[in-house]
Amino acid sequence: MKNFNRLDKDQAAVLLVDHQTGLLSLVRDIEPDTFKNNVLALADLAKYFGLPTILTTSFEDGPNGPLVPELKETFPEAPYIARPGQINAWDNEDFVKAVKATGKKQLIIAGVVTEVCVAFPVLSALAEEFEVFVVTDASGTFNQISRDAAWDRMSQAGAQLMSWFGVACELHRDWRNDVEGLGALFSNHIPDYRNLINSHASFTGQS
Amino acid sequence: MKNFNRLDKDQAAVLLVDHQTGLLSLVRDIEPDTFKNNVLALADLAKYFGLPTILTTSFEDGPNGPLVPELKETFPEAPYIARPGQINAWDNEDFVKAVKATGKKQLIIAGVVTEVCVAFPVLSALAEEFEVFVVTDASGTFNQISRDAAWDRMSQAGAQLMSWFGVACELHRDWRNDVEGLGALFSNHIPDYRNLINSHASFTGQS
Amino acid sequence: MKNFNRLDKDQAAVLLVDHQTGLLSLVRDIEPDTFKNNVLALADLAKYFGLPTILTTSFEDGPNGPLVPELKETFPEAPYIARPGQINAWDNEDFVKAVKATGKKQLIIAGVVTEVCVAFPVLSALAEEFEVFVVTDASGTFNQISRDAAWDRMSQAGAQLMSWFGVACELHRDWRNDVEGLGALFSNHIPDYRNLINSHASFTGQS
Amino acid sequence: MKNFNRLDKDQAAVLLVDHQTGLLSLVRDIEPDTFKNNVLALADLAKYFGLPTILTTSFEDGPNGPLVPELKETFPEAPYIARPGQINAWDNEDFVKAVKATGKKQLIIAGVVTEVCVAFPVLSALAEEFEVFVVTDASGTFNQISRDAAWDRMSQAGAQLMSWFGVACELHRDWRNDVEGLGALFSNHIPDYRNLINSHASFTGQS
Amino acid sequence: MKNFNRLDKDQAAVLLVDHQTGLLSLVRDIEPDTFKNNVLALADLAKYFGLPTILTTSFEDGPNGPLVPELKETFPEAPYIARPGQINAWDNEDFVKAVKATGKKQLIIAGVVTEVCVAFPVLSALAEEFEVFVVTDASGTFNQISRDAAWDRMSQAGAQLMSWFGVACELHRDWRNDVEGLGALFSNHIPDYRNLINSHASFTGQS
Amino acid sequence: MKNFNRLDKDQAAVLLVDHQTGLLSLVRDIEPDTFKNNVLALADLAKYFGLPTILTTSFEDGPNGPLVPELKETFPEAPYIARPGQINAWDNEDFVKAVKATGKKQLIIAGVVTEVCVAFPVLSALAEEFEVFVVTDASGTFNQISRDAAWDRMSQAGAQLMSWFGVACELHRDWRNDVEGLGALFSNHIPDYRNLINSHASFTGQS
Amino acid sequence: MKNFNRLDKDQAAVLLVDHQTGLLSLVRDIEPDTFKNNVLALADLAKYFGLPTILTTSFEDGPNGPLVPELKETFPEAPYIARPGQINAWDNEDFVKAVKATGKKQLIIAGVVTEVCVAFPVLSALAEEFEVFVVTDASGTFNQISRDAAWDRMSQAGAQLMSWFGVACELHRDWRNDVEGLGALFSNHIPDYRNLINSHASFTGQS
Amino acid sequence: MKNFNRLDKDQAAVLLVDHQTGLLSLVRDIEPDTFKNNVLALADLAKYFGLPTILTTSFEDGPNGPLVPELKETFPEAPYIARPGQINAWDNEDFVKAVKATGKKQLIIAGVVTEVCVAFPVLSALAEEFEVFVVTDASGTFNQISRDAAWDRMSQAGAQLMSWFGVACELHRDWRNDVEGLGALFSNHIPDYRNLINSHASFTGQS
Repeated sequence: MKNFNRLDKDQAAVLLVDHQTGLLSLVRDIEPDTFKNNVLALADLAKYFGLPTILTTSFEDGPNGPLVPELKETFPEAPYIARPGQINAWDNEDFVKAVKATGKKQLIIAGVVTEVCVAFPVLSALAEEFEVFVVTDASGTFNQISRDAAWDRMSQAGAQLMSWFGVACELHRDWRNDVEGLGALFSNHIPDYRNLINSHASFTGQS
Repeated sequence: MKNFNRLDKDQAAVLLVDHQTGLLSLVRDIEPDTFKNNVLALADLAKYFGLPTILTTSFEDGPNGPLVPELKETFPEAPYIARPGQINAWDNEDFVKAVKATGKKQLIIAGVVTEVCVAFPVLSALAEEFEVFVVTDASGTFNQISRDAAWDRMSQAGAQLMSWFGVACELHRDWRNDVEGLGALFSNHIPDYRNLINSHASFTGQS
Repeated sequence: MKNFNRLDKDQAAVLLVDHQTGLLSLVRDIEPDTFKNNVLALADLAKYFGLPTILTTSFEDGPNGPLVPELKETFPEAPYIARPGQINAWDNEDFVKAVKATGKKQLIIAGVVTEVCVAFPVLSALAEEFEVFVVTDASGTFNQISRDAAWDRMSQAGAQLMSWFGVACELHRDWRNDVEGLGALFSNHIPDYRNLINSHASFTGQS
Repeated sequence: MKNFNRLDKDQAAVLLVDHQTGLLSLVRDIEPDTFKNNVLALADLAKYFGLPTILTTSFEDGPNGPLVPELKETFPEAPYIARPGQINAWDNEDFVKAVKATGKKQLIIAGVVTEVCVAFPVLSALAEEFEVFVVTDASGTFNQISRDAAWDRMSQAGAQLMSWFGVACELHRDWRNDVEGLGALFSNHIPDYRNLINSHASFTGQS
Repeated sequence: MKNFNRLDKDQAAVLLVDHQTGLLSLVRDIEPDTFKNNVLALADLAKYFGLPTILTTSFEDGPNGPLVPELKETFPEAPYIARPGQINAWDNEDFVKAVKATGKKQLIIAGVVTEVCVAFPVLSALAEEFEVFVVTDASGTFNQISRDAAWDRMSQAGAQLMSWFGVACELHRDWRNDVEGLGALFSNHIPDYRNLINSHASFTGQS
Repeated sequence: MKNFNRLDKDQAAVLLVDHQTGLLSLVRDIEPDTFKNNVLALADLAKYFGLPTILTTSFEDGPNGPLVPELKETFPEAPYIARPGQINAWDNEDFVKAVKATGKKQLIIAGVVTEVCVAFPVLSALAEEFEVFVVTDASGTFNQISRDAAWDRMSQAGAQLMSWFGVACELHRDWRNDVEGLGALFSNHIPDYRNLINSHASFTGQS
Repeated sequence: MKNFNRLDKDQAAVLLVDHQTGLLSLVRDIEPDTFKNNVLALADLAKYFGLPTILTTSFEDGPNGPLVPELKETFPEAPYIARPGQINAWDNEDFVKAVKATGKKQLIIAGVVTEVCVAFPVLSALAEEFEVFVVTDASGTFNQISRDAAWDRMSQAGAQLMSWFGVACELHRDWRNDVEGLGALFSNHIPDYRNLINSHASFTGQS
Repeated sequence: MKNFNRLDKDQAAVLLVDHQTGLLSLVRDIEPDTFKNNVLALADLAKYFGLPTILTTSFEDGPNGPLVPELKETFPEAPYIARPGQINAWDNEDFVKAVKATGKKQLIIAGVVTEVCVAFPVLSALAEEFEVFVVTDASGTFNQISRDAAWDRMSQAGAQLMSWFGVACELHRDWRNDVEGLGALFSNHIPDYRNLINSHASFTGQS
């Protein structure tokens, strides 16, 4: 039995690793519409909770392509580390500096592809005693074999596997902190929840 | 061998049947994010090509819930038939009148659930000699058994099974008719295509 | 393009073929909870619409086992033909007599296993010019290969493939014929619909 | 190698978290008929073994909807904590008080959705040294990625993953404690087992 | 609506095409244990009903390997056409002669791989007005795409898609023709049916 | 029952439509390694049988990207129609001219994506009385729903659905026409067949 | 890093728990032909290696049905404990006595259903410091959710998850101990291996 | 939390176990085209990084067949241990000597089949304190049950589960070490990556 060191919005930073327009075409363990939605949901929740967020890319000028524009637009002020070559973002000094500059002990990480761009910094961060939370559904890779192997490796090393929805709920703690805000996040990114809200509003005469 | 009576933007109307917030929770043969995207893509293409579009719902005040708001917003002027009870929209005189008032011979139909709200008017329209095109990926139902049975019944009766992407391409005919417009439709509703466009713009210095 | 000879509650009879406790253990193309629910839903709808219903079994005393008790209880007065050996129920004179005694031209058929107990009487009935509707989701068999082959054979011969939900809706035609009755049928056999009804009642203060 | 601290009907309590009519529409990692059956089976077994059971919900008046009525009816006397906002039930003092008031060390937990409403109180309870048993098949969530991540997180923290059937068998210990009672539970919730019982009764002349 | 020209044991012959030890390693649209069982079941039923059976192979000395020994042993007297090179067995005169020498109008065909060794003679035989029944589950190929395409091609040309179980039942017509024999066939090749028989025998004291 | 107008190497031409580096990232109904292999296998067989082959692309300078280089290299002399905008290749006069210049009545078509780049020219060619054979496994699209709908539409219009392996075998007719050549084609594109050949060679001392 | 205490034929006993004709109808996480083959393969290997084997059943006279006859026949002399009611075989004194009478420290366990009849004695045996090896593919249960939960529980407690093939190979150590014997075991229970053997014999002139 | 002892090209050796032409026909948990590609990708990366590589086979003269020729050709100088009978390669003295002669502490292992030819030496090597990395997607076995069990056993013993792509990236560390070389490896073995490269080259005028 372990302590339950929960995600805490005052302790957490978000690392978005290599969500680039070329690399995204490699992702085949999750449907494209779902994956796009999950990545944007994670971005929106990072912004909503005001978490320090760090963007990084690998070789934007090459086939990997540029960062998806929505992420740039959501975090215009975020540290943006275009790595000149390091595959593991943690091998880039600027990246690690940016992470440490946040002063946070909890790292929420997602990226493409899971077993490399996510797993490598996850394992590096764990080795430096960060608490690491992998956003599994905002991370993608070639196929389910690669995903399952990567998850096992990260989990065995001490990372906690989450979904963006779990991250949002664990950070929010209590609906009363802001019903509207969390409701809007869910309405924008969970079609079934949006339907519930719309039915409810219609039946109760609220909007 | 049959004639190839292609979809023609001057001959076609769109019927959107029962995309209601309650009924959508019944759809389990397609992922929610993908299904939402497909329905909105079909709506956007109907608007883009200026096709006459008819909205209809069943029992909005009851558990089926209201029409999804996005459809109302996309087609503020469209005939909107809130059926008082007919399950087959074609049993509603106002609906059939609205269809016939378009003067079109080609009907593009999608709805929830496939074997009822789609299949019934499809079979009715075929019996009145309309050419009928089912947008399979903007229609949903309980599970794959129900879907497969419904597809077989409609196909055997003479309906043509399409995807929203196929409908868009068959209507557009030639990219030169409007590269920007079709590109925007695809960019908004096909994440992989959006990535291609963004990579291309980045590499060629266009935007 | 074909006529749309719709299911009509004054023209239709239901044939339930070999839903026996032993044979059900052979059904593996559909989850057991779902299959049980679908069979009982079909029985309930047959009773609700007052359709003449015929029960038949093969070798109840042997390994095939007795008819599932729920069906006996739902149709205590129905013709019940325990076939002494004929595999195709249509080879049994009493069964065909019972079918013809209903005076109906539309036969709604379900049973176990699909490619034998369903397909054989379906093909026989089609050859005698009945309109035949197969309730695919209340019929089961060994695996998906057997199912797909059986569906293709029946469809090519002119049978229409339906789900129990489609059958109910096509028979009912208009919610106004009895909102309560149809609603109860759906509430009892579609968990998602039951949830919609319960949410709606809760939000609107109805019950 | 660990001790095998088995589930013991004198040591165990059941926590049913957020099985609400709205939230259930979010569950897509398990078929609706199967899921409904599993939840009711867990409720029935809790009642059968006389386990103290605690019900809790989140925002019943909002889109999440009311608790499913069957659970209210099965446990009319159970502590019922309608949480005013806490997402993690364990953050609600009344809930924790109710749990501790049972005096039990073993907690059997199920709910919707798995990675939040189940995982959060599971992790909290483990941190307070309870033995925690997750009823995986009476818990549901958005998709298999979310489920797999949630299972891994709970398992790594020390929770034991069970099915309702496993829970029932581990509590019962010996058929001779009550053949009829356990048989009825299985007959009501496992169609294949019901068939076995009916075949057996038919062949042996018992009922 | 078509005639139902049923399989008739006095009208039918069986063609087993290229079930060779090498080619079998190509079959990946069905599990190996299941496929082996289905092929042997088809062989056993052919023998049980005394249907004329024809064996043929392609290039036994090459990588395709020899006919599986069980088939040779089951049909020691059957015409055995080791084709010197024709891919479509129907292009081999000896094969067609052997088929015609049976004097049967109904051909039951299975083989490896489905879209070639089965589909080619199926299409050839249909063109010569034979009634053709494909045993889908005793035929195998590379993957489901190949299978689905082959099924569609054969079905559209007029072949009927069956399973070995359907073939056996359609030939047998009535259990009373030989309960023991058909029961043994099923017991040997359907584990679930064997279990039913063993349970039944145990409960009733028969064996 | 239909004639069996077989593929004949003296009657057939191959049309490869829009296998472009960008569009290929849209293909998600088949694994990338398998799809790449199938497309190259089709190219190799076209070359092996000396079939006239026509290449066409849509918007090479835009996001769709250039034709995959392997196809250019395999068919350096083939007619290459870079369409300026027509989505249906058959709407391009040069393309149709090139097709008709081959003088062939049988068209073997594959492309990306199935419901557009393949289905449109397929339907157009059928309307002009060509015999059309779709190479299903060398054609790809967004997902299985789109594929299934496209297959149904083409099949109902009279196209025959094939795999590249079926095409090769139907064209070759008899291994004796060239054992080495066909064997090499299979060895290069079917790993399981390559293994059979290597095992055989090893055991028999041939190479 | 752990010691690798390998399975050793002088240290291991086999426990076959509740492979009864009725209970087998509950198994739906594995195909019936495959499961039957795996159970018989495990039995054959136990006999082949001369491992002490213990059979046990629960309620043979009731719906669970008798032990499958093949197991009785393979182990006519084995201890056979028909438990009067204990669900966990380890709760039965005779069973534990029989296990301990073998004097072995390594227990190879399989049964039906996985999360109960297998998992309970596995956890009990681990608690008494046996080394436990679960034969996953000769154990079956209701569905994959139940299986995955059971595997996780057993693995976390220290059991090692194996397949029958892995068990056979780990016990045999070296082909030279008996090529014929191991080859026969594989030929009888792995169709693909049987094909390899038959091809090899044919090509090399051996048999 | 563990140290992150990364794969280091100066510390690692590669062991390729039993990729033989016969045994490959047993692999059914991964598509053949994909598996072939993965094995060759692993070989190419071993060569590219200059890692000492050891080949071993079991019974090449028997049904298992010879090593796939591509591996022999890629590593003409590599130690090649044709084991006379040992199933666990680690039981062969020459093999262990060859491993130890490399002087490396990190072993990258792949083979056929996963639960035997891979798992056994993995467990043996872990017991001797090597760091072990399993290349999951270049290892194959009979089905997913066998794979999942084998992965769990190896992971619990301390092995790290990887994909060949993860291995390549972890060894390379930084693109700047050799952009061309790594790019070529990916272009040859990842069709989607090749497409990205070709699109990029086309758009930027590079090649």
